[in-house]
Amino acid sequence: MELVSIEEIRAAASRIKGAAVRTPLLPQSWAPLWLKPESLQGIGAFKIRGAYNAIAALDEEQRARGVVAFSSGNHAQAVAYAAKRFGIHAVILIPDVAPRAKIEATKALGAEVIEVPIDRQESSALAVGAERNLTPIPPFDHRDVIAGQGTVGLEIAEDLPDAGVVLVPLSGGGLASGVGTAIKALLPGAKVIGVEPELAADTAEGLRAGRRIEWPMDRRARTIADGLRAQPSDLTFAHLQTVLDDVITVSEDEIRQSVRTLAHRARLIAEPSGATATAAYLFHRGELPEGKVVSVVSGGNLDPAMLAEILSD
Amino acid sequence: MELVSIEEIRAAASRIKGAAVRTPLLPQSWAPLWLKPESLQGIGAFKIRGAYNAIAALDEEQRARGVVAFSSGNHAQAVAYAAKRFGIHAVILIPDVAPRAKIEATKALGAEVIEVPIDRQESSALAVGAERNLTPIPPFDHRDVIAGQGTVGLEIAEDLPDAGVVLVPLSGGGLASGVGTAIKALLPGAKVIGVEPELAADTAEGLRAGRRIEWPMDRRARTIADGLRAQPSDLTFAHLQTVLDDVITVSEDEIRQSVRTLAHRARLIAEPSGATATAAYLFHRGELPEGKVVSVVSGGNLDPAMLAEILSD
Repeated sequence: MELVSIEEIRAAASRIKGAAVRTPLLPQSWAPLWLKPESLQGIGAFKIRGAYNAIAALDEEQRARGVVAFSSGNHAQAVAYAAKRFGIHAVILIPDVAPRAKIEATKALGAEVIEVPIDRQESSALAVGAERNLTPIPPFDHRDVIAGQGTVGLEIAEDLPDAGVVLVPLSGGGLASGVGTAIKALLPGAKVIGVEPELAADTAEGLRAGRRIEWPMDRRARTIADGLRAQPSDLTFAHLQTVLDDVITVSEDEIRQSVRTLAHRARLIAEPSGATATAAYLFHRGELPEGKVVSVVSGGNLDPAMLAEILSD
Repeated sequence: MELVSIEEIRAAASRIKGAAVRTPLLPQSWAPLWLKPESLQGIGAFKIRGAYNAIAALDEEQRARGVVAFSSGNHAQAVAYAAKRFGIHAVILIPDVAPRAKIEATKALGAEVIEVPIDRQESSALAVGAERNLTPIPPFDHRDVIAGQGTVGLEIAEDLPDAGVVLVPLSGGGLASGVGTAIKALLPGAKVIGVEPELAADTAEGLRAGRRIEWPMDRRARTIADGLRAQPSDLTFAHLQTVLDDVITVSEDEIRQSVRTLAHRARLIAEPSGATATAAYLFHRGELPEGKVVSVVSGGNLDPAMLAEILSD
């Protein structure tokens, strides 16, 4: 399987310029830690990088026909936002159990939202795409999506050439695949470590076994980190096997405490998924290699009530 | 009175490079609003720019003798942090009524902290400075401090050359003086508007009257925006008279609601002072000139209990 190259990531960086925020790398005064705050993207998560790159890479005729995606989370808003910037039509299939706020936010970005039963999301998206001749933009199982997410790693390498460790959350693996590819190409001495909730640690188990291990959705759904419940595809798993030096798993309580620490000490609102990599720094420092640590804060979209509840603990 | 020039601000930008974060300008997907998140500085506020620039501008012999400052807020940590980077001694006089967390944070940055009665802060700082031959670094009444804060405006002008309105909080006036000077020099068509709490609106009243108007401390202390309780000096007032197009005052409730909106929609933790400029956008849009609006989120240091309380409302 041909893996995504650093050239593809560089091409993605050119394409997304101006559409995604070139986030700073934030040195922390309370710890030898640097944060990459993707929560500050306009849609609140790194997903805009991959979605925009994939749509930008389509040929003009194909792009003009429109795109389709399925997601209950940040990918939905990423595709809607990118499509809006290109002035094209986007159809997003969202599970009918998703919070109203997410559905409304996606509609507000101009997308056509179709609510479907959660177990028919993917098949419905394929059917709608075929019927209406729309190009599917998958959340992670796509070279251009991986290359787009990889620009996070490109920017980390530019901003901290002596980084020793890069911590990145693991779910479908698009972000970790892209970041790992960029870091290994540009900072070959740095270690790239994926971080997973203990309650959705299918990738940690799979990498130990040397093959993808399927966890049923109800098992993965136990974690508060709702953005980390997906599983790698063959494509992302192959990347992860190549670019990750290790996987660390963190507890639910460590994730919640990390949301608090990011708010109080870094002044960043992180959703639980977005705080997961930082939990590895805060609670598993003994498992990390030596060197300056970068943690990717992947997103900041969480329900106001959940935020208030976590910060009141 | 000779006002700070754009050349002094450019010189400050060169000096602070690497010491202060070059914060991005964050476009919001929910409103035609751009946020300048100074809350993301290592010490959580723009103050590092002025403090670092002032210390960097000292001659080497003077700098080596050390510095002294008085502050209960973000300036204390800014001077402590800048001194630490230069490897010099800093003495910070903090009122004995200040929260322990602020005192401990300043000590953690390596500064010598002296607790003094709140009404003797400034006189004690002068006495300690004279006795121990330390150079005072004032919070705003100093050209190099104003020039350092002005780099916020320089970056805004670089990132959004077609900005129509820049909203900036008003207190001692160092930030507004510097930002206004940079914007007027670089984007002469843009309007610069100061924002003050109604409960500490001495500058709004003073600018209408054409002279500084003294509000007693107990009157100014009523606002939740504890970073906006200072009053301009002759130097900053002269700048404000020249560079501000208007002043908008906002209510306490508008400030609290803006802290919530920044958390929920921009994923930024802002202290009440840091949310004040954004309150003018959210609640006084009718008073703003036409054009793209930039709001300076000046800082994000607030007590965890206060944050939880505001977000639970």
